[in-house]
Amino acid sequence: MVEQLSEAERAEALDALSDWDYDEGRDAIVRRVAFGDFAEAFGFMARVAILAEKADHHPEWSNVYNRVEILLTTHDAGGLSHRDVELATAIDAILEA
Amino acid sequence: MVEQLSEAERAEALDALSDWDYDEGRDAIVRRVAFGDFAEAFGFMARVAILAEKADHHPEWSNVYNRVEILLTTHDAGGLSHRDVELATAIDAILEA
Repeated sequence: MVEQLSEAERAEALDALSDWDYDEGRDAIVRRVAFGDFAEAFGFMARVAILAEKADHHPEWSNVYNRVEILLTTHDAGGLSHRDVELATAIDAILEA
Repeated sequence: MVEQLSEAERAEALDALSDWDYDEGRDAIVRRVAFGDFAEAFGFMARVAILAEKADHHPEWSNVYNRVEILLTTHDAGGLSHRDVELATAIDAILEA
């Protein structure tokens, strides 16, 4: 069982994840990214899919042509957990590489 | 420029695409599919991505763990066109294989 972040932990995490927005209704974080085209967007998704599968923690996400929207939350925890923060950090690392 | 399907063409297409729902607001078709797990769902998405890129016609789609929702419409045509029908038919063929 994964625990939901406390308010203080969440504030700290959101501070570090400056490219992510907080979705209060879902207790989730959301990042929207635009790429040059569909192939780039889907290539990114494939990298995230592999990360997610390895971490056994999966995003809720959508793609329209060159745009990808990723929402992270932990169903088992009823909201944000350290698993979301770790996956978000790994996604950021792909995007900054 | 791709032309929007006429009402009769759309009716015929929807009749053939029995696993797709018609979204009247978007003049789009939608199919929702569930797989055994995330890896299967994303494997399917990778196949569709390649089809879509080859056809230069891309879905609006989302994925949550083992579920994939695909919406097809043709922005240039302002609604459903033969390109959506062709991509939907190719997606159905993957799912029936």
